[in-house]
Amino acid sequence: MQAHKIALAIHGGAGTILKSSMTADKEKAYQSALKIALEQGYQVLENGGSALDAVEVAVCFLEDSPLFNAGKGSVFSAEGRHEMDASIMEGQKLMAGAVCSVEGLANPVRLARRVMEQSDHVMLANKGAEQFAREQGFEFEKAAYFHDEYRFQQWQALRGSDKFQLDHSSKKDEKFGTVGAVALDSTGCLAAATSTGGMTNKKYGRIGDSPIIGAGTYANNTTAAISCTGSGEFFIRGVVAYDVSCLIEYKGLSLKDACREVVHQRLQKIGGDGGLIAVDTQGNIVLDFNTEGMYRGWKTPQGHGIEIYK
Amino acid sequence: MQAHKIALAIHGGAGTILKSSMTADKEKAYQSALKIALEQGYQVLENGGSALDAVEVAVCFLEDSPLFNAGKGSVFSAEGRHEMDASIMEGQKLMAGAVCSVEGLANPVRLARRVMEQSDHVMLANKGAEQFAREQGFEFEKAAYFHDEYRFQQWQALRGSDKFQLDHSSKKDEKFGTVGAVALDSTGCLAAATSTGGMTNKKYGRIGDSPIIGAGTYANNTTAAISCTGSGEFFIRGVVAYDVSCLIEYKGLSLKDACREVVHQRLQKIGGDGGLIAVDTQGNIVLDFNTEGMYRGWKTPQGHGIEIYK
Repeated sequence: MQAHKIALAIHGGAGTILKSSMTADKEKAYQSALKIALEQGYQVLENGGSALDAVEVAVCFLEDSPLFNAGKGSVFSAEGRHEMDASIMEGQKLMAGAVCSVEGLANPVRLARRVMEQSDHVMLANKGAEQFAREQGFEFEKAAYFHDEYRFQQWQALRGSDKFQLDHSSKKDEKFGTVGAVALDSTGCLAAATSTGGMTNKKYGRIGDSPIIGAGTYANNTTAAISCTGSGEFFIRGVVAYDVSCLIEYKGLSLKDACREVVHQRLQKIGGDGGLIAVDTQGNIVLDFNTEGMYRGWKTPQGHGIEIYK
Repeated sequence: MQAHKIALAIHGGAGTILKSSMTADKEKAYQSALKIALEQGYQVLENGGSALDAVEVAVCFLEDSPLFNAGKGSVFSAEGRHEMDASIMEGQKLMAGAVCSVEGLANPVRLARRVMEQSDHVMLANKGAEQFAREQGFEFEKAAYFHDEYRFQQWQALRGSDKFQLDHSSKKDEKFGTVGAVALDSTGCLAAATSTGGMTNKKYGRIGDSPIIGAGTYANNTTAAISCTGSGEFFIRGVVAYDVSCLIEYKGLSLKDACREVVHQRLQKIGGDGGLIAVDTQGNIVLDFNTEGMYRGWKTPQGHGIEIYK
């Protein structure tokens, strides 16, 4: 078996992330968290682990950090809840799992993987998904685990209004709150995972692109693994993650050109803001976005990097 | 403005639908319902109405019929509920709306359209979607509206077990219960809509492909409008509806070849059963499936047809 190059990329959301509105301490905290997530995921790949394990480990670390809008750092919904979405996909058999509007789970991405591996389904929602989690032995956290004063204040500012807020929208010092990871392992397999706490003050059980296979997450060993972050509605309408894959498979574009076409042409044409990370089976990595910034990191045997701004 | 050919196609689900296991009366009832849905939708187009209106009208009629697993004819979930999913998309601005796991609504497709036109979102779920429906003035039906003795007996056969059943799975005389419509209007606009009552005895808040833009439903005026029916998990993993569009846009396939490639090659490669209906801006119609049958109908100025078997 041919040894493949290994590669990992992660993101912690995109949006109006300006150096001018960032303190040195805050910047350092983000960089540090991204670095650890990257190292933990990459370690899995270096030890010969699967791309699936690597993206799960990296996303779990980001879910555990209060800095990112996913897992512990999830924002407050209109009813003061933390409703989380996540999805995961592997590129060999195109297996996938997703959960939406789940509460109380520290790591929704783990539940998404369990759906993929231990259920007959791809997507489970709400109380039903939580019942599946209980039957699978997942532990549930109390609301206090998810309480964060900054997130609470974000909610208070919008509470009772019809306004909602993507974590870092263009109007505020907020980002599109999503975390994600894509990986290539030493056997040549690709995987992608995405997780989010949704939008501050979101109503009506809104579901964004993060738990939707093809929109927020996609992986296929013949093309690439992709994880998105941005204004979810536009990513759904653009079927963004799968669009990158199709441009490679059907039109013969390189990973870089496919991502550029989707992020800067097709997505912007319908008004979508955000970005994505992607890796192909040659270990090429792309981290592209049409916003001011995107929390991101990447690592291959040839090098690594952590970046926030354009 | 150039006058376009108008075209409409509908489906009422695919699966192991064998002439040998169908009574003459039952067959006549299905044919009659399909014919009325087709005529009602086509009438909209003939009167110069939009593709969106046409697919909504056709799907509403199928939702109102107890014969199909959508709306009134929805199957029972594991908890004895009727949890419905629907989506709609138009091809000019790529606007889309979807609802999942909603209860008590006679016509989930109408709510999906309202989400598209009157909310900032694409996809609303569960109680939140129902709250949106109430605020929009939708009336809710009592459980008795959805009670059907045949559906109830289907559930009793599986109740309390871990089994679930797609309406007409390959193992039983059951079909994949979904309804859908695709249309081309006289202005050259395309639209698609899909609606389902899910799977008998379904658990865990399972969501199939019907409410997922790109998987069960997609429309784009530069390619085609597509509505799918089948084993939803595979349609999600295959991003089936958008795949047809990409094969046309990126690989230059005809509508017919694109549908054949997706239904008989790519979908079957991962084990997916089912079919789809599609229409392009030239008014070409395809109704393709890899199962024994698919309830279907089509109409253009050149002709029309209602069919059930291969």
